[in-house]
Amino acid sequence: MEFQIVKKDFIKCLTLLQSIAERRSSIPALSNILIESYKDQIRLTTTDLETTIISSLACNIQQEGKICVSARKLYEIIRELPEEEINIQGMENHWAKITCKNAIFNLSGLDPMEFPTLPSYSEQDLVGIKSFDIGEMIEKVVFAASTEESRYNLNGIFFEAISSGDKNVARMVATDGHRLALIDRESPEFLCIKKGAIIPKRGLNEVKKVVGEYPGELKLSLSENSFVIEVSSFVIIIRLIDGEFPDYKQVVPTENDKRIKLNTKEFISCLRRISTISSDRVEGIKFTIRKGAIELYSASQDIGNAREEFPALYDGIEMNIGFNARYILDALNEIDENEFFIELKDEASAAIIRPASEQNPLYVIMPMRV
Amino acid sequence: MEFQIVKKDFIKCLTLLQSIAERRSSIPALSNILIESYKDQIRLTTTDLETTIISSLACNIQQEGKICVSARKLYEIIRELPEEEINIQGMENHWAKITCKNAIFNLSGLDPMEFPTLPSYSEQDLVGIKSFDIGEMIEKVVFAASTEESRYNLNGIFFEAISSGDKNVARMVATDGHRLALIDRESPEFLCIKKGAIIPKRGLNEVKKVVGEYPGELKLSLSENSFVIEVSSFVIIIRLIDGEFPDYKQVVPTENDKRIKLNTKEFISCLRRISTISSDRVEGIKFTIRKGAIELYSASQDIGNAREEFPALYDGIEMNIGFNARYILDALNEIDENEFFIELKDEASAAIIRPASEQNPLYVIMPMRV
Repeated sequence: MEFQIVKKDFIKCLTLLQSIAERRSSIPALSNILIESYKDQIRLTTTDLETTIISSLACNIQQEGKICVSARKLYEIIRELPEEEINIQGMENHWAKITCKNAIFNLSGLDPMEFPTLPSYSEQDLVGIKSFDIGEMIEKVVFAASTEESRYNLNGIFFEAISSGDKNVARMVATDGHRLALIDRESPEFLCIKKGAIIPKRGLNEVKKVVGEYPGELKLSLSENSFVIEVSSFVIIIRLIDGEFPDYKQVVPTENDKRIKLNTKEFISCLRRISTISSDRVEGIKFTIRKGAIELYSASQDIGNAREEFPALYDGIEMNIGFNARYILDALNEIDENEFFIELKDEASAAIIRPASEQNPLYVIMPMRV
Repeated sequence: MEFQIVKKDFIKCLTLLQSIAERRSSIPALSNILIESYKDQIRLTTTDLETTIISSLACNIQQEGKICVSARKLYEIIRELPEEEINIQGMENHWAKITCKNAIFNLSGLDPMEFPTLPSYSEQDLVGIKSFDIGEMIEKVVFAASTEESRYNLNGIFFEAISSGDKNVARMVATDGHRLALIDRESPEFLCIKKGAIIPKRGLNEVKKVVGEYPGELKLSLSENSFVIEVSSFVIIIRLIDGEFPDYKQVVPTENDKRIKLNTKEFISCLRRISTISSDRVEGIKFTIRKGAIELYSASQDIGNAREEFPALYDGIEMNIGFNARYILDALNEIDENEFFIELKDEASAAIIRPASEQNPLYVIMPMRV
């Protein structure tokens, strides 16, 4: 195998591919990248068995073939090369030779046969989606997914299509049991999704990176086992989480009739201030809502206490309710609007946080005793 | 005690002071900041017993007194406050009350008597030094100081004044036994230093930060026990390391007659490239110097090998010599000139690296077997 490629495109591609290759794995091939050259392009693949990323790059092929080398080392070497043409050649015993100007690298490799068999997908199932920002959707909800490995069914984002009235909507939901994040985006093409599925967040974070680099049209499919997305010259195949996602509609409150409108930026500042005084473990903050104001209070036995009153349009009964400041801040950081609503039912029920002029993203946060 | 202060000056000062306060210490006062108010200013002090930083700030004093509170918490709270006037008040049981607009913080504190007695220094001993960049001197050598606690006499920078001919020179030297860094800067006032001393690098890093924020004239003294520096409204007192600094003049080679001039930026790139192929533990690189060229070679059993030839003006005998790439890169990163010299004696002796048109900073790097 032998081909020539310019550094610029190659490194952009390797940057996205190498992050999925594992640093240390019991299966050596998983830390490697598979490079196949045929006709007038190379195809690069990395996988952690759950997420597989494939990218094709047009380049000058001298000889067809395959190599399989450390993804991280290849990335580090290419990153440090000058902006010149790079020649890559397969050698005996699965070695690869990389030359660029005066530099020569000989990289030991694996038999490409050892690289895992790629999950198959059907090009025909892919549906083209126009002007749809899947990266934004992932961004707005992914932080709420659980990081506890034992709760594997919460380690991903639930993705489904909903048609209500004449609108077709793509929906993503994530939850860790303490808070829930939900976003809807209208898109007529999304009826292609027949049934909701849980997509692992690690793979979706890769999708977010790739669509961030290559915005525009995309194609996707959601089958029984996998989510496939095609963006520019990238194909990302993510194995679905085999589990039941909780019935999130039960969790989203519908009777939160006490509503306070607040300035997003100022409230974030206030919350950050008050939560400086709280134990490192649980950032519990007491919210007191009364006529014309919301008051935040936090106390820690070792450090002291903090209190701040925040003027707010509210005319209902006084309420005291505690929240984890971190959960509120995580939600507010994803609200782009200048103003947002906190919607409450009573002192023991979950709060809703959402932008003031839009229905979503919508965040549900369970109260805590403080 | 009670005073008012504006956020801007206060936070700049706290940022510099809080870094020396320890997060966790068996002596609680060491994680605290002492604030004393008298007449028309407050005096802030933090110490780790080795380095003490004192800063004075003019402000509106309502009542004289002292408080002693967590340096980190105070910094975190002040950082999150709006850009408004802040009122700080000493309360019963050593508590402090901080108010700013609608926010009220009550911070538990310690009896100010528990704060360590400050090292004394004599204002009279301080000598004014004009237009002298002590921050640059620290920067250029501090990385070479040892991080091994057991080699306590190498954990600092050796600072001395030298007069050669009609020139008075301030000199700093640091070494970890594998490499040595030396910088001289001319300054007539430096004869105030009678005898060289080892100043701990942690304290000097704080000096670097403070002079970085407040450049200009400074005053300093070096006594039997301590180094004192006055910069703007800051006084930093650093307890000297009680030990013998090695006879560094023995270490700096004087017979390195093989000299190669190289482009700094290009050689850094080349070295970074070649050192991608080397084991993580020791970044050993083989340098081959021959007529018209220098060649770098590196190999790792697991990964492969790399080679690059670099054109260079050299007409001497061929030499093979190994170096730790990290040490060479650390030195080159501190050379601001476009070109630098590598000066060698033979295959078993230390190399000198220095800028092409200046005598210093000067870096001595021991060879290694590769």
